Amino acid sequence: MNIRQIVLAGRPEGMPDVSHFRFEEIPLPEMKEDEVTLKPLFFSVDPYIRGRMNAGKSYISPFEVNAPIQSGAIAEVVETRSSRFKKGDKVLGMLPWATRAILPASVLSSIDTRLAPASYYLGILGMPGLTAYFGLIDIGKPQEGETLVVSGAAGAVGLVVGQLGKIKGCRVVGIAGTEEKCILLKKEFGFDEVINYKKETDLPKALKAACPNGVNMYFDNIGGEISDAVLAQIQFNARVVLCGQISLYNQSSMSNGPRFLPLILTRSALIQGFIISNYKERYPEGIQYLAKSLKEGRLKYTETHIAGFDKLPEAFLGLFSGQNEGKMLVVMEEE
Amino acid sequence: MNIRQIVLAGRPEGMPDVSHFRFEEIPLPEMKEDEVTLKPLFFSVDPYIRGRMNAGKSYISPFEVNAPIQSGAIAEVVETRSSRFKKGDKVLGMLPWATRAILPASVLSSIDTRLAPASYYLGILGMPGLTAYFGLIDIGKPQEGETLVVSGAAGAVGLVVGQLGKIKGCRVVGIAGTEEKCILLKKEFGFDEVINYKKETDLPKALKAACPNGVNMYFDNIGGEISDAVLAQIQFNARVVLCGQISLYNQSSMSNGPRFLPLILTRSALIQGFIISNYKERYPEGIQYLAKSLKEGRLKYTETHIAGFDKLPEAFLGLFSGQNEGKMLVVMEEE
Repeated sequence: MNIRQIVLAGRPEGMPDVSHFRFEEIPLPEMKEDEVTLKPLFFSVDPYIRGRMNAGKSYISPFEVNAPIQSGAIAEVVETRSSRFKKGDKVLGMLPWATRAILPASVLSSIDTRLAPASYYLGILGMPGLTAYFGLIDIGKPQEGETLVVSGAAGAVGLVVGQLGKIKGCRVVGIAGTEEKCILLKKEFGFDEVINYKKETDLPKALKAACPNGVNMYFDNIGGEISDAVLAQIQFNARVVLCGQISLYNQSSMSNGPRFLPLILTRSALIQGFIISNYKERYPEGIQYLAKSLKEGRLKYTETHIAGFDKLPEAFLGLFSGQNEGKMLVVMEEE
Repeated sequence: MNIRQIVLAGRPEGMPDVSHFRFEEIPLPEMKEDEVTLKPLFFSVDPYIRGRMNAGKSYISPFEVNAPIQSGAIAEVVETRSSRFKKGDKVLGMLPWATRAILPASVLSSIDTRLAPASYYLGILGMPGLTAYFGLIDIGKPQEGETLVVSGAAGAVGLVVGQLGKIKGCRVVGIAGTEEKCILLKKEFGFDEVINYKKETDLPKALKAACPNGVNMYFDNIGGEISDAVLAQIQFNARVVLCGQISLYNQSSMSNGPRFLPLILTRSALIQGFIISNYKERYPEGIQYLAKSLKEGRLKYTETHIAGFDKLPEAFLGLFSGQNEGKMLVVMEEE
């Protein structure tokens, strides 16, 4: 049986485009003892994938050129030589971008589809939800009445952060890049204020108006000029949860911005770079909290679905122009 | 009796100079119940004083124009209407820059001159020493074998930080601004490597050579381009103790520098702005540790003395051109 896969065609300098991805047809290798054959159902596309396209070291190893891109995926077991999974089981794992994959059972996790739909394990009950939960609760330490600013507020992480902030009694101000997203955040997700940074001509002024008492927590998914503006408003003992810097991922050299360390100093503020895998041992706590909040209706969730294996590169590239509301997923069609 | 005092003549924009200080002669007011009359022995001059010359809010209230500058001082009680202090007692307090001062006993602390010379309570057993201790131990959390970089290494705080780092088994790299300071740091204070940032033409390269395993902790007293270079070398889980930004205190607007937040993110690093008064309740712990280490010879200490009340403005201004080794003190002459 032949399968199709998508490999890294070359390392991008700056913004990647479709030329950095190559579609290939290869024979499906033979399944060994303790392995399973997987049919992917949903692929997650995430900003951190951009980092893995570079050669440089990061907290996660780079993709090899001419080898498949990988991302989180939900898949169905279609054949098995493992006692852990039976045919038809739905599993979560890091999968190559391929129409079928053979992987050791040991790198896959079961998911409980009675608790939530399978795709949720790539979003609110997966890395994005856990990132929101541990970043906000553990580093942000929200206190009732404080002001929380979230950049990338309509993204997979930001949407959860803002809602958790509301649960904790904070004033929540979201920053997003389209009017549709801003309306969604306020009407559907309970954000107190929203700022459309693409429309706003004076971001510092808009932030001051939205945060009359300044900023106590900043959950940053974006970086760059948006963060410059937010950091200028931080209050004493502010906490900055550094989760993403998507506006800067495609820069081939460091850009310049205002030197804000004197403000961090005089405000006794904290900036914490944050990687969800540091919290591995506490994932069950996070999943339980998020699932319970979903069930009780205190958390809402939305996904952007794009259909078809061939759309994986475009869906990924769309993250950098903000084409998603909530979690961006590529849904497989029957092949 | 008339006394002399030094008042803030006007708020500086950028670098202050002697014109921002004015000498005045005024009558010594009458001492009230529970007050003491003080003859200052040593005045501390510290970089944070620059911040108090501005109108803007900071973690400490600004000086008023036409009112005396204040700083930490050791003084002798020359008259007393308080039961807490008797004539001849030596006390620590925040004193106006004046040849005599009358203050409530309640704002003064006793010092133990059997434990260490009086002036040490403005340095290694005072704010600078405690800043070094809590900043490094509590935020830096030094681990044996890690690399610690200290900017402003020959200053009152930096000297202690570096030595504490050595006690904790770290590789300690100091950054200072003269050859004399660099020699002192290596020969007298046990720093492993020193970098003269004023002589070095390629600071990033010099840092790489001095820190072959990268930087695990950065104790920053300086900010600006020095910090740009150090932050570029931070390792996974690095801790940045933000203690001072003296290179930027005299800028009237924010300067630009490289946007390093993506590095903080991918290195899972921490930046903590840090104000010693947050640790008030734990001062005794810090003083005890520092006094013990001094007594055991594990900590050394040096002061730069400048003689004469009239030299206070110059001594303060000298901090910004790095004219001190260790703690900068102005020693009063008999008036």
